[in-house]
Amino acid sequence: MPKESKRRSPLRSGQNRATAADVARAAGVSVSAVSRAFTPGKSIAQGTKARVLRAADALGYQPNPLARGLITRRSGMVAILMAEVSNPFYPTVLETFARALSAQGKHVMLFTPGEDEPLEALLPRAFGYGVEGVVITSAKLTSEMMSVCANAPVPVVLFNRTVEGADVSAVCCDNEAGGRSIARFLVQGGRRRAAFVAGLEGASTSLYRERGFAAGLAEAGLPAPLRAQGGFTFDGGLRAATELLALKTPPDAIFAANDIMALGVLDGLRRAGGLRVPEDVWVVGFDDIAASAWPSFDLTTFRQPINRMIAETLRILDLAESGAPSSPSTVLLPGRLIERGSTESAVGAVREPF
Amino acid sequence: MPKESKRRSPLRSGQNRATAADVARAAGVSVSAVSRAFTPGKSIAQGTKARVLRAADALGYQPNPLARGLITRRSGMVAILMAEVSNPFYPTVLETFARALSAQGKHVMLFTPGEDEPLEALLPRAFGYGVEGVVITSAKLTSEMMSVCANAPVPVVLFNRTVEGADVSAVCCDNEAGGRSIARFLVQGGRRRAAFVAGLEGASTSLYRERGFAAGLAEAGLPAPLRAQGGFTFDGGLRAATELLALKTPPDAIFAANDIMALGVLDGLRRAGGLRVPEDVWVVGFDDIAASAWPSFDLTTFRQPINRMIAETLRILDLAESGAPSSPSTVLLPGRLIERGSTESAVGAVREPF
Repeated sequence: MPKESKRRSPLRSGQNRATAADVARAAGVSVSAVSRAFTPGKSIAQGTKARVLRAADALGYQPNPLARGLITRRSGMVAILMAEVSNPFYPTVLETFARALSAQGKHVMLFTPGEDEPLEALLPRAFGYGVEGVVITSAKLTSEMMSVCANAPVPVVLFNRTVEGADVSAVCCDNEAGGRSIARFLVQGGRRRAAFVAGLEGASTSLYRERGFAAGLAEAGLPAPLRAQGGFTFDGGLRAATELLALKTPPDAIFAANDIMALGVLDGLRRAGGLRVPEDVWVVGFDDIAASAWPSFDLTTFRQPINRMIAETLRILDLAESGAPSSPSTVLLPGRLIERGSTESAVGAVREPF
Repeated sequence: MPKESKRRSPLRSGQNRATAADVARAAGVSVSAVSRAFTPGKSIAQGTKARVLRAADALGYQPNPLARGLITRRSGMVAILMAEVSNPFYPTVLETFARALSAQGKHVMLFTPGEDEPLEALLPRAFGYGVEGVVITSAKLTSEMMSVCANAPVPVVLFNRTVEGADVSAVCCDNEAGGRSIARFLVQGGRRRAAFVAGLEGASTSLYRERGFAAGLAEAGLPAPLRAQGGFTFDGGLRAATELLALKTPPDAIFAANDIMALGVLDGLRRAGGLRVPEDVWVVGFDDIAASAWPSFDLTTFRQPINRMIAETLRILDLAESGAPSSPSTVLLPGRLIERGSTESAVGAVREPF
């Protein structure tokens, strides 16, 4: 049975696979010399290297990145802790990370908590795998979590999250500046009664976007925004729209703390009828996910600079690995307003063509 | 500077971390005995185990899953090769896999090809990491790829893909039966001029869905469906709608090979005006992604049984690992039609309440 024998190859069973120790023995060198022979840039005498390569070839030895990771402490793996991917922003983040790491010959290990599993339980597991760094995104961050991070054996970066006073690096869009820009844009457009749809309470993204939004309105002499809860979900946005429409005087502009809620708000307004977008009420989101550009929604939003955020995250991981100063840094990157049909054009603004 | 000293802990530098070899030396046993002491269910004399645990405790040794993986050949990692995540179906698949594996104490290593990087180049990298299995999804599968898979040192499962005649296991929704169900549903509803919007040419999912759809129409005495290309993207669906509307006699029903294209078709019809959904034309998708249930779309679709598909995939990986017969198997699972507002109710059908 050729099929069976093919599937039960020595490689498969693993029993006969040559190890670095086998090669070391055959070449009469140390295991460390075998590792150096297979690691680009490592110092090793040419004669020794040639002997190792000859022995490796004779034994059919392939260097194993795990084994090398144990020796060099560079496993080539970066852990990403992601609590949920139902917001389409995060799959894009994950894909972009995976591609950027792949270009460096590295790979993502994905850690997703089970139901009721605290995120901090996953961190020691990630460390145990010898990952070179950990990126934490889309998560409720507890103080236990921050303490585990601050004492981590490898660099940790919070992505799209910040925790005030925490001893951990963070890379974020400047959410407060984004909220303020949106407020100014609404004010310029003559909006006078704005509402804010909050994400999860306790999420730094929602908090800072709201803070900047309220500050921008206050600077223009407008009152604090009306407020509804949307929990960062589409259905939450639907419910928030219903709530805001039920007010005696509904808002003339709604800023939802992320796009997926803003899409729910648009659908909620459409289902309720009565108020037209953008004639009666403007709607603005935050993120610029793909669906925001779909004709049904045509949502004005604040685009996060995902590529730059990921490049900065990788830079921090690299710096920390290379032994450069490792005091935690917080990087805030500017995003930009993308105008579409869910708002009218403010004076002087340039619309994105569909 | 307490902060600096905390970040430069012995754990961080890795120099002073106790290894299994240290513990073995201290306990006067072999490294293999240390491994057995820390592996649940492994046979080891109680006295030896106690000696190992005492030595480990004294040295602050934590078993390292990588090192254990090298000894036991069970790294606890499963590779997922995913070429794109822009179709929202795949992030859901990835999240569900990650959670299911996490419940078994295992983790996902994500492999995403760079631009122009052939997927088959990633497989040897995954094998090199000692992954216990490989799941391939969302990919153009070449014959080179299939040959690498058939000779893989660990079990490989194609997810949501099949390749005829390939020596590799596959788990799929029964796409052909799904296409046929949709044809019957349209015929029952009095539709007489159906169109099919194809995904990527060469993708087995699109191919089988089309085959079943055409067969179902033929069984009812109807002609082969009109046809447009949508490339599995929203924009492709938009363009396909425009194309089909430009026909002298446009279709009275459109089945798009995945939901994201069907949403594009709906938006294309809406933008063009003229034809109303569902009065003049019915639209049906395939997958049941979250956005299909949004009020703006309210799309009738064929739901893939993601949870069962993933459970079957893990079962195949487990069986192969446990040494059970490993001839490749193809598992086809039934999906089901979810009726919503983009079609009218066929006789006797039960609608999902919004």
